[in-house]
Amino acid sequence: MSDHQRILIVGGVAGGASCAARCRRLSETAEIIMFDRGPHVSFANCGLPYYVGDVIKDEEHLLVATPEMFRQRFNIDVRLRSEVVRIDRERQLVEVNDLEQGAIYTEHYDALVLSPGARAIRPDMPGIQLPGIFSVRTIPDSRRIRQWIDQYEAREAVVVGGGYIGMEMVENLHKRGLAVTVVEKQPQVMPLLDPEMAAPIHESLIGQKVGLRLNEGVERFDPGEGHRLALTLASGGRLETDLVIMCIGVRPNIDLARAADLAIGESGGIQVDPHMRSSDPCIWAVGDAVEVRDVVTGATAVVPLAGPANRQGRIAADVIMGRQHGFRGVQGTSVVGVLGQVAAFTGASEKTLKRLGMWEQMEKIYLHPGHHAGYYPGAVPISLKLIFTKKGGRIVGAQAVGQAGVEKRIDVIAMAIQMHATVFDLEESELCYAPQFGSAKDPINMAGMIAANVLRGDASLAHWEDLEQSDALILDVRDVEEYNQDHLDDALHVPLDELRARMDALPRDREIRTYCFVGQRSYYAARALSQHGFTVKNISGGFKTYLMHESAKYL
Amino acid sequence: MSDHQRILIVGGVAGGASCAARCRRLSETAEIIMFDRGPHVSFANCGLPYYVGDVIKDEEHLLVATPEMFRQRFNIDVRLRSEVVRIDRERQLVEVNDLEQGAIYTEHYDALVLSPGARAIRPDMPGIQLPGIFSVRTIPDSRRIRQWIDQYEAREAVVVGGGYIGMEMVENLHKRGLAVTVVEKQPQVMPLLDPEMAAPIHESLIGQKVGLRLNEGVERFDPGEGHRLALTLASGGRLETDLVIMCIGVRPNIDLARAADLAIGESGGIQVDPHMRSSDPCIWAVGDAVEVRDVVTGATAVVPLAGPANRQGRIAADVIMGRQHGFRGVQGTSVVGVLGQVAAFTGASEKTLKRLGMWEQMEKIYLHPGHHAGYYPGAVPISLKLIFTKKGGRIVGAQAVGQAGVEKRIDVIAMAIQMHATVFDLEESELCYAPQFGSAKDPINMAGMIAANVLRGDASLAHWEDLEQSDALILDVRDVEEYNQDHLDDALHVPLDELRARMDALPRDREIRTYCFVGQRSYYAARALSQHGFTVKNISGGFKTYLMHESAKYL
Repeated sequence: MSDHQRILIVGGVAGGASCAARCRRLSETAEIIMFDRGPHVSFANCGLPYYVGDVIKDEEHLLVATPEMFRQRFNIDVRLRSEVVRIDRERQLVEVNDLEQGAIYTEHYDALVLSPGARAIRPDMPGIQLPGIFSVRTIPDSRRIRQWIDQYEAREAVVVGGGYIGMEMVENLHKRGLAVTVVEKQPQVMPLLDPEMAAPIHESLIGQKVGLRLNEGVERFDPGEGHRLALTLASGGRLETDLVIMCIGVRPNIDLARAADLAIGESGGIQVDPHMRSSDPCIWAVGDAVEVRDVVTGATAVVPLAGPANRQGRIAADVIMGRQHGFRGVQGTSVVGVLGQVAAFTGASEKTLKRLGMWEQMEKIYLHPGHHAGYYPGAVPISLKLIFTKKGGRIVGAQAVGQAGVEKRIDVIAMAIQMHATVFDLEESELCYAPQFGSAKDPINMAGMIAANVLRGDASLAHWEDLEQSDALILDVRDVEEYNQDHLDDALHVPLDELRARMDALPRDREIRTYCFVGQRSYYAARALSQHGFTVKNISGGFKTYLMHESAKYL
Repeated sequence: MSDHQRILIVGGVAGGASCAARCRRLSETAEIIMFDRGPHVSFANCGLPYYVGDVIKDEEHLLVATPEMFRQRFNIDVRLRSEVVRIDRERQLVEVNDLEQGAIYTEHYDALVLSPGARAIRPDMPGIQLPGIFSVRTIPDSRRIRQWIDQYEAREAVVVGGGYIGMEMVENLHKRGLAVTVVEKQPQVMPLLDPEMAAPIHESLIGQKVGLRLNEGVERFDPGEGHRLALTLASGGRLETDLVIMCIGVRPNIDLARAADLAIGESGGIQVDPHMRSSDPCIWAVGDAVEVRDVVTGATAVVPLAGPANRQGRIAADVIMGRQHGFRGVQGTSVVGVLGQVAAFTGASEKTLKRLGMWEQMEKIYLHPGHHAGYYPGAVPISLKLIFTKKGGRIVGAQAVGQAGVEKRIDVIAMAIQMHATVFDLEESELCYAPQFGSAKDPINMAGMIAANVLRGDASLAHWEDLEQSDALILDVRDVEEYNQDHLDDALHVPLDELRARMDALPRDREIRTYCFVGQRSYYAARALSQHGFTVKNISGGFKTYLMHESAKYL
């Protein structure tokens, strides 16, 4: 394609802005026009909840770039309040609605990049239009929430939807002193996580007096007293509150693409090839509106994440400028912080792999190591779940939750997944260690060692959820004090350090399943028992994992 | 090898203890005896400086395991205060000196594992035996330092040697309120780092009133007033102080191995094959006393790190028990925290690569991104140096220094190096992003993008140290305020946003080198200029890197 071309970009946040700037870096002669129907370009979407929470105090801080900067620095023509309403693919024209002037005009393109993003889902239910019900997608959205809280001295809020944005809104409304209730249709918050991994977040929320209504939906909104709102719940219950934040997800903005007959994927996003090209060779699409491929499962999905959006914008620019550059897909790496808990994720979850019929090939382990050396004060546990293939030990996914050092471990595993590492690689990783930063055996190494032990046949593994299908003897090998505090009702108790002396009392004709608090001592026990001829399995992750499973079951 | 064997282990810390426990997990029938000449087994070596600093308040916390635990839990016979003084390889015997009883006895082995560690170097100089001069290798060492400080109400200390342990001693003595002076022979602290990367640590130390005597050594110690010590320095200067900590490195304990005629490597460590086997097929060696291979450079070295020591112990156990398991070598991943600064390292440094004659094949970049999104309060910069091959962009090493998020990035790059990743992989990495944890373009992605731009030819790179050999025009593209505050004397100043308008004033017959504060705006400038026909290079890492280089030069 010639350098003297006209590139039009629809949508000026993340992917669009990245694409525009990269286009200019690759070509000084191209004409680049970026349209956005909103009042801002390139703003910090992911900062909006923190602006509501007044952690980010100044709206200006959310503006990553201004139209002036784009003009001066990159010679890019940014047109705000300008909605592209139609694409004429045959003549390579777009129709633009100047929302300020109310006038419609057309612009020709050689290359068109769609970065329309996604919009908050607002279900069609009675009362959804009432004042006091907000989404959090734009700076004006956040500003309106702030104003509402100030104006009505709001003391209570309901967050509908417990995903990433929902949790961040809980964090920030709580920080402003509001009593928050979460209403979530699923039996857990953070639906990306497997249920047992969300349990520590539930407990933290409850412990900090956040209302948690799981398996619950909103049926209708009615005006309450004064500015207040009355919610009727699916269960029949009612809630009164000062404001409602709708965080039940986003839907790709594909109206423009659909009207232009561009191919739409099964997941509801604009279909693109690895070069971010749509079904029209002159039209690219990037960001929250496109369908992407999961690098781990191969499944297609719409994944609204800022990192991939930025990289897609860059890739589209490269391809427009005649380069070879492909998008490798997404692996869903993400993190959320909520009231002192951090949960992070990469790759595929157990429930996703089950849904896709891939779980048979997988194994999982749990561990709960300290975030740094235990002998250095302040170590807090990380609950880590690692999923890997039974054949070869390829790492498939990881989830972690804890108070510190959580996203570091997930970042390392994200890199490992990207590079097709196995659990044997994690075992041998050489990571930073000083007592305030990690351990001589980092949680990453520990995860690798535990998983490698399983694959090498050194540890035969059991999981709590399989307990009911077995008549195995459950053996608790913890200390007396731990056992007395809490244990499984039908467990036999033999502390690890007495095990060799008391082995003769154990049955040789019945499978034994060992547990301790986190799974390490019970692994030692299982090793000793199996060498003495017992049939034995170690229950992964110990009593702590049991408690997480139970908590997930009964909430 | 038969399961009914006798395994003797010399040295009960890190590698030795890991080996012993793993041996038991793999064999219930082996007889395992572990000797240590000290009073403790398996103690937290890396915690000793923090015990001096009273961060770790209780000596008990440093004891990772006790002989009782080894006996009860692992059926391992631990013999403390028991020094193995001779190996009779032919008869497979060791002579053990029972330091309590003063008696010598022999024990037979089928497999012998040497984990003797390393000892602090105490140079043979006048006065080195005076009271008040300490090393930090054992719990009694640390206890003596604590007692000395308390007894004499010490207010001043000299730390000789500015490596990891030296810096941790500075941190901890400073925390106890002592005025600390560092005496270091090299022109920088943290000799593992390249000099410019150590500069921020120098500035932090100086800013917090730590005395810094670089290019300086101690000639002799003399008694001072009362308990005090008088140091005569190589430069002729003198220092009086309450105590001295010797941290000039460690030397492998190889006397036993050498006396037994085991092969010793060029680096002075016990020679082992990848299975941790010494030149005698019945003797293994692990930990600080062995020579290891650097996975990046292929060079051999003695690398005293806890992580590798633990893994080597595990590998030796596997091999003794008849398994195939190899040590992949070390990559030198390490971290230190000192007075609010964190420095971390993995792979090879520029100076090591130069020493080995490998630098010609390498390129490097600098960057200074925020540790999390700039729009979220509290972002602090990380100075990051990435070294990669000119051909193919294989990542070879990384160094980072900053106040937060430092070791996370080095851990991710450590995993990338392990998996033979390239800068193009870093570019596409998908890492955790929420504004308090990272950026949509994480520092890791930024590093990859900058390096990939270089390799794709999009950015022609220059480095500050090459400036003097060139007659290029230096172009400062920062804002007026930044320029006025400080700049290169002979730089021409054209702010980036005015560049296109003022391009005609720039010379077309002379190379231009652009800089800004961190290297991003100057990259934009270089892109624009090169497309308008100018010959231009971007100076990597900008003015901030210049200041680091200058600081390293003039201290």
